[in-house]
Amino acid sequence: MNAFLLTVGDEILLGQTLDTNSAWLGRELNLLGIRVIRRLTVGDDHNEILASLEEGFRTAGLVIMTGGLGPTKDDITKKAIAAFYGTELVFSEETWQRIQRIFTRLGRTVTEGHRQQCWMPANARLLPNRMGTAPGMWFDDRGRILLSLPGVPYEMQAIMEDAALPELRQLPGVTPIIHQTLLTAGLGESEIAQRLEAFEDALPAHIRLAYLPSPGLVRLRLSAYDGQQDIRKAEVDQQAEAIRALLGHAVFGEGEDTLEAAVGRLLSGQGRTVATAESCTGGYIAHRITGVAGASQWYLGSIIPYHNYLKTSQLGVPAETLFAHGAVSEPVVLDMLHGVLQRLGADVGIAASGVAGPGGGTETKPVGLVWIAVGDMHHPRAIRLQLGKDRQKNIEMTAIHALQHLRLWLLEHRPETSG
Amino acid sequence: MNAFLLTVGDEILLGQTLDTNSAWLGRELNLLGIRVIRRLTVGDDHNEILASLEEGFRTAGLVIMTGGLGPTKDDITKKAIAAFYGTELVFSEETWQRIQRIFTRLGRTVTEGHRQQCWMPANARLLPNRMGTAPGMWFDDRGRILLSLPGVPYEMQAIMEDAALPELRQLPGVTPIIHQTLLTAGLGESEIAQRLEAFEDALPAHIRLAYLPSPGLVRLRLSAYDGQQDIRKAEVDQQAEAIRALLGHAVFGEGEDTLEAAVGRLLSGQGRTVATAESCTGGYIAHRITGVAGASQWYLGSIIPYHNYLKTSQLGVPAETLFAHGAVSEPVVLDMLHGVLQRLGADVGIAASGVAGPGGGTETKPVGLVWIAVGDMHHPRAIRLQLGKDRQKNIEMTAIHALQHLRLWLLEHRPETSG
Repeated sequence: MNAFLLTVGDEILLGQTLDTNSAWLGRELNLLGIRVIRRLTVGDDHNEILASLEEGFRTAGLVIMTGGLGPTKDDITKKAIAAFYGTELVFSEETWQRIQRIFTRLGRTVTEGHRQQCWMPANARLLPNRMGTAPGMWFDDRGRILLSLPGVPYEMQAIMEDAALPELRQLPGVTPIIHQTLLTAGLGESEIAQRLEAFEDALPAHIRLAYLPSPGLVRLRLSAYDGQQDIRKAEVDQQAEAIRALLGHAVFGEGEDTLEAAVGRLLSGQGRTVATAESCTGGYIAHRITGVAGASQWYLGSIIPYHNYLKTSQLGVPAETLFAHGAVSEPVVLDMLHGVLQRLGADVGIAASGVAGPGGGTETKPVGLVWIAVGDMHHPRAIRLQLGKDRQKNIEMTAIHALQHLRLWLLEHRPETSG
Repeated sequence: MNAFLLTVGDEILLGQTLDTNSAWLGRELNLLGIRVIRRLTVGDDHNEILASLEEGFRTAGLVIMTGGLGPTKDDITKKAIAAFYGTELVFSEETWQRIQRIFTRLGRTVTEGHRQQCWMPANARLLPNRMGTAPGMWFDDRGRILLSLPGVPYEMQAIMEDAALPELRQLPGVTPIIHQTLLTAGLGESEIAQRLEAFEDALPAHIRLAYLPSPGLVRLRLSAYDGQQDIRKAEVDQQAEAIRALLGHAVFGEGEDTLEAAVGRLLSGQGRTVATAESCTGGYIAHRITGVAGASQWYLGSIIPYHNYLKTSQLGVPAETLFAHGAVSEPVVLDMLHGVLQRLGADVGIAASGVAGPGGGTETKPVGLVWIAVGDMHHPRAIRLQLGKDRQKNIEMTAIHALQHLRLWLLEHRPETSG
């Protein structure tokens, strides 16, 4: 079964509101094996909505429309739907009673706009909205289904979860897809493609592999379409194992996992604590780490010696070392690591110093040059990176490289106790 | 002039990736007075892309296509475009040289996938991509323009800013709307609406005021539609001044300015330096500050005593104070401020300690309770916040409040020298 998602709203076309509803619906429908083939956004305009509904049903058996409902826009959307079905609007006494009950309870006064909301296309079946005043509407025209939902995300989601998804699950031809997403760091999209070339050629037709790259990371999504649920599940797990074998430590997690959470699991598993010393990343690594709930179990803290003299006063980097090699150098980043381990009393650490840009580059130390150090007192490891010219991206890429290199270090230097 | 935005990518339809590109393009085109009339998303499929291009040009003179470029998907998109124009792909030696140069600089190996990227539709004019390997493509078929851009947001934006937007601005029928955006902090949307009520009533019809709220901030956008450019410019500037007068210190900047940059301008103007001590925000304030280019002129660094004992060892907060009042308290946050000023030698500072959540709340210290301190040794100021239950949002709101309170403190405590 195919679905067509229709989003209505000038504010979306203007870019003032981000359309998160379509993404949420895409994920939910995909889990049901309903394939979203197109997403269309149009403005709050009768003819545009009408034309979009016709277009939607030319290509799909299910059209889900979000937005265009609520006190201010209601009539445009509903009149367009009524016109599409060649019916008219009728007053829903039931909805009117509900809205009045809600407002009495909230001690607010009902407006004319709310009374307008109670006019519905005659062929609409109303879906309860426990989060707001505008109910969802379900239309079934000889098996071609239209769902009209309010644009407010939590209202839309509530109506889907309470009423629409359970009904959609029962429709003929709806068979949930199996998939698994592997998260990788340290390899580029094309490097991975090369390593997986033979694997992809051997992949059966009903299992697909998708690359979802983002800066420093590539997500690999395996999806199985046909066949029995349990068999496909086993197949996908098996293919995922094959990918893990081919990519090794580049795979750090699954699904919604993060690199910092993966590092955290390793640290707690090994009973180790970590501290950070950040110059060019200016706290971004600490920010990502402390975004992991429960990080206080294994993260001690950070020293950010943004100014060079703090590298000496706060981390004990000898002024001579700074003078001789410059702040962005292997000796300095190794001294920073040593200093933060000693002063904060952590088992392992991350230190970073680089030229984030846009300014500050020189002939020998160009913008994008970054030195990272990871490890413990006895086995520190320094890594040199040459990144690009964009400050924000350099900061993000440095954090990702640092977390990935610490992860690799932890995998290679397990404490005796944890074998 | 009308525009049709076409997003290509299975990952968008599946909801695995949020389409932020269309929103960004919607805003930028709106600034040029180009109206986005439709947004369509289709999968990585030859026929779908081909059909969408035809559909796009039926309704608009400008089609901007994002996604579907990059080592793994390249050929589908480009073959579809070539088919649309009835031309074939030619090899771009120039692009091939560029990719090889980039990779040599990065010390990485070029793959077959990258060589594939160099095949372009014969009628494409290439737009430089300073952020990645895939160039943008500009097609002009008797005034009907197609732009094909990579889906990675920062690459797409770089190509638009460097090459595409300046050219679009020159097109016949493109008359940029005059706008000015004022950025405010510390006032809620309804508070602002109240203060501006009379102002808005008096606003001439051809000038509109839009409220664009985001967590902790409200952007106020003035737009002038008709009349001569220079006259409208003068009118908008005048109205902006009127708003500044009505909102006072709540207005911290214009356009793409940030609160941290505004704080930075004040500090450099006053010849002062700042340091931060962050517990609950775990480096996020430092991250925002160091996101400002040239921050090293006025930002010294930070100590992040995530673990309580570091509040004592690194910031000199007496253990008794921590014991008596708890880490999230006025005395502790004032001691943290004092400690960071003393140890890092900054003129002014920010200290923050709170219960970010989701766990860690108690009867007396619920999730969302945050104490902030700003100022110098002589005039420290402590502020208590009661935020919500969401960890990430609490961290962001704490940073915004801290920066805004430091800004107000700096405005009220100008050093004698700067009058």
